Amino acid sequence: MHPALSPWAAQRRPVVYDARKRDVMRKVLVANRGEIAVRVIRACRELGLPSVAVYSDADADALHVRYADEAVHIGPAPAPRSYLNAEAILDAARQTGADAIHPGYGFLAENADFAAACAEAGITFVGPSAEAIRRLGDKAAARQIAIDAGVPVVPGSDGVVDPEHAADEAARLGYPVMIKAAAGGGGQGIRIVDRPEDFPEALEAAQREARAAFGNDAIYLERRLIHPRHIEVQVLADHHGTVVHLFERECSLQRRRQKVLEEAPSPALDQDTREQMTTAAVRLAQAVGYTNAGTFEFLVDQNGFYFIEANTRIQVEHPITEVITGIDLVKAQLRIAAGEPLWFRQKDVRVSGWAMEFRINAEDPDLNFFPSPGTITALGLPGGPGVRLDSAIYPGYDVPPYYDSLVAKLITWGADRDEAIQRGRRALREFEIEGIQTTIPLHRRLLEEPDVIAGDYNAGWLERLLA
Amino acid sequence: MHPALSPWAAQRRPVVYDARKRDVMRKVLVANRGEIAVRVIRACRELGLPSVAVYSDADADALHVRYADEAVHIGPAPAPRSYLNAEAILDAARQTGADAIHPGYGFLAENADFAAACAEAGITFVGPSAEAIRRLGDKAAARQIAIDAGVPVVPGSDGVVDPEHAADEAARLGYPVMIKAAAGGGGQGIRIVDRPEDFPEALEAAQREARAAFGNDAIYLERRLIHPRHIEVQVLADHHGTVVHLFERECSLQRRRQKVLEEAPSPALDQDTREQMTTAAVRLAQAVGYTNAGTFEFLVDQNGFYFIEANTRIQVEHPITEVITGIDLVKAQLRIAAGEPLWFRQKDVRVSGWAMEFRINAEDPDLNFFPSPGTITALGLPGGPGVRLDSAIYPGYDVPPYYDSLVAKLITWGADRDEAIQRGRRALREFEIEGIQTTIPLHRRLLEEPDVIAGDYNAGWLERLLA
Repeated sequence: MHPALSPWAAQRRPVVYDARKRDVMRKVLVANRGEIAVRVIRACRELGLPSVAVYSDADADALHVRYADEAVHIGPAPAPRSYLNAEAILDAARQTGADAIHPGYGFLAENADFAAACAEAGITFVGPSAEAIRRLGDKAAARQIAIDAGVPVVPGSDGVVDPEHAADEAARLGYPVMIKAAAGGGGQGIRIVDRPEDFPEALEAAQREARAAFGNDAIYLERRLIHPRHIEVQVLADHHGTVVHLFERECSLQRRRQKVLEEAPSPALDQDTREQMTTAAVRLAQAVGYTNAGTFEFLVDQNGFYFIEANTRIQVEHPITEVITGIDLVKAQLRIAAGEPLWFRQKDVRVSGWAMEFRINAEDPDLNFFPSPGTITALGLPGGPGVRLDSAIYPGYDVPPYYDSLVAKLITWGADRDEAIQRGRRALREFEIEGIQTTIPLHRRLLEEPDVIAGDYNAGWLERLLA
Repeated sequence: MHPALSPWAAQRRPVVYDARKRDVMRKVLVANRGEIAVRVIRACRELGLPSVAVYSDADADALHVRYADEAVHIGPAPAPRSYLNAEAILDAARQTGADAIHPGYGFLAENADFAAACAEAGITFVGPSAEAIRRLGDKAAARQIAIDAGVPVVPGSDGVVDPEHAADEAARLGYPVMIKAAAGGGGQGIRIVDRPEDFPEALEAAQREARAAFGNDAIYLERRLIHPRHIEVQVLADHHGTVVHLFERECSLQRRRQKVLEEAPSPALDQDTREQMTTAAVRLAQAVGYTNAGTFEFLVDQNGFYFIEANTRIQVEHPITEVITGIDLVKAQLRIAAGEPLWFRQKDVRVSGWAMEFRINAEDPDLNFFPSPGTITALGLPGGPGVRLDSAIYPGYDVPPYYDSLVAKLITWGADRDEAIQRGRRALREFEIEGIQTTIPLHRRLLEEPDVIAGDYNAGWLERLLA
């Protein structure tokens, strides 16, 4: 469908700089599907890097297969037998001579064993080291790394707490407080306590429940944050010791812990908190010898910010950072993975304007967001000023029922927040997808909500709106 | 097709600021078609301004009709009976209660009589005054305005030259020189002289030809520029005396005097020339009391820059200025026309990165760019980072044969020129239009040409390439 790059074009631009004159990166296998696979293939194309798509039975006609230079079938539709099948993907890389694998997000992106297997096979994993994925993937370990690095975490007891001193510890943390079973999981053995006078009874109940459920009544405490915001910091780190941040993304508009609409910058941060948070993120990255692109997530309330977890991969919402900084994060991932030193410094990273991302999912907002796969019978795409579309759909495309329902991301940019919103309204009106239900009507509604227009929302706001 | 703006949304944002508390702008009729009509309607929508489309018989299914809030049929397909029919357009404005008319480009956009008729009808013409259009529309008058303002023009004799002193005057101007009939037109009575020794004979021939053709052998001289560049400066001026420039656009890649591919900034200007040219453009605007958006066009050669003409309207290539400055020129036009003072100063206008525009025309590059109207049977649109599309087409759309062949504009942005080119290549590869022939293959070819990649071209380059 697409003509090959002319030999002249391929020669013109060495794909990747390598100061040590080792082999440069030559071909990238994209171990993913949907819009993120299209995104990574675009980055490869712009760098002059040939790309290899992989696809399941359900994705033979997918856009990422059409856009890549080569495509390899790796198995049936269920992800464990295709996109999660590490062996099939490594085989596809060997078969096509790909010397690098970009995992996208989801699937194998945060699988330390897969990153290690790539390294063993002599294939560059476009992401951090297996070791960094492992250390940050364990939430308790990541919390300890933050504490050791002097980065605030959600206040809690220092591990298991002696029941006799638990009430004092709770008073020290401040109410409301959560009593949690040390051996807990699945929400069992948790009590939320709003007032000191309720503490003794709740403690006994939590211990009883923990004994019954886990045969272990050890408990620990954590402060319960009231209506926190969910804000994350984007970091890029090369293999030569340079770590920079690209400021924050506001991700509080969530439904069932899934982000729905993100914006950058955050309308909630003052300059001082922004500086502290971005510095903390850089410190965390340095603490684990992090490389490549990563995100450090925080909760923010009126008292401060608290590190909660790291995402050791590119994120769905990365485009809003790209449009306000002008830095292509996926191309940066590829260049860093190939050994190139970062080509800019922290002071060169400047924010211009405001960006919003609207996740378009094949779901029916009128049916409690039930998935809505099917054939797209007609498609009207938004365009014009300040509009970017990262999409995996086309007219006649059949959205399969097997995977995440995200089918497109609409990103708008404005000189200020108001213009980003105006363009969001305008572009959402132009965006027409027929044949399936999508979350477009939800986004149209959100941009008429006074709280969203004012930037006055937190991580529980959308659930309350939809309740 | 599109739901009306909610009353709440309409109330939320006063459409247009007016310090003098006169009526604000309430509804805009867009007196154009194609991508520029869509562009203007988008700007209206983002400002919360209701828009009225007008359409000919040939455009009943056009995108601008679908995107506008209202649409009025104004006549049969031939432009003189619809888009050039001032009376029909004014009637449509009266009939719909539109209190402003945006003319786009082409058609009535530089028609001073139409601007005057709008004013008489109490309708705001979104553009400069009829007087400014008139003064700058007369090329000889515009040249004199430039001379009076101290802005360089292409060197020439001061009007008609005495044949006895013509050779001395030619020597003063420098060779090659053009001898032109004062009464001339249509290319008659013009002689290009490369060397002084050829001058006397050429003078006689030019006089002879002028006598025969126009019954008048008066001649004047103009220096012939060698391979000049065509570079223009964008200006915005409000009704309160503020004039700013938004830097330049490089428009040298032309075929038959039609621009094909534009970029901003110009790869040819040094900082000193850029400052002189932009200052000259502001001075020209001030000299005629210019208001709204306008463009001052220059030829540039190794010796300097020369004003050639002004375009008293928005231009096709305005998006490349928008993406490097972040300023929405069409919204600026509307706000200025409504009386709003410019909301930024010259020092606030900053250039970020590089932009290119690829004009996609329904023409067959293999058939000497013969028009190629017809039905678009399939459409694959480019997307992703750094890509903007201003288009008037959709799958199933029937490109009519009656109008300009421009059907879409692909604009790419990059952190530097190289990235803008890389994204151009990538997006042009994704862009697929089936059913008609387009200039997409020409653009793909241009981005592989070493001279284009190096930015080393001038206003004759593309004609030579295609010769």
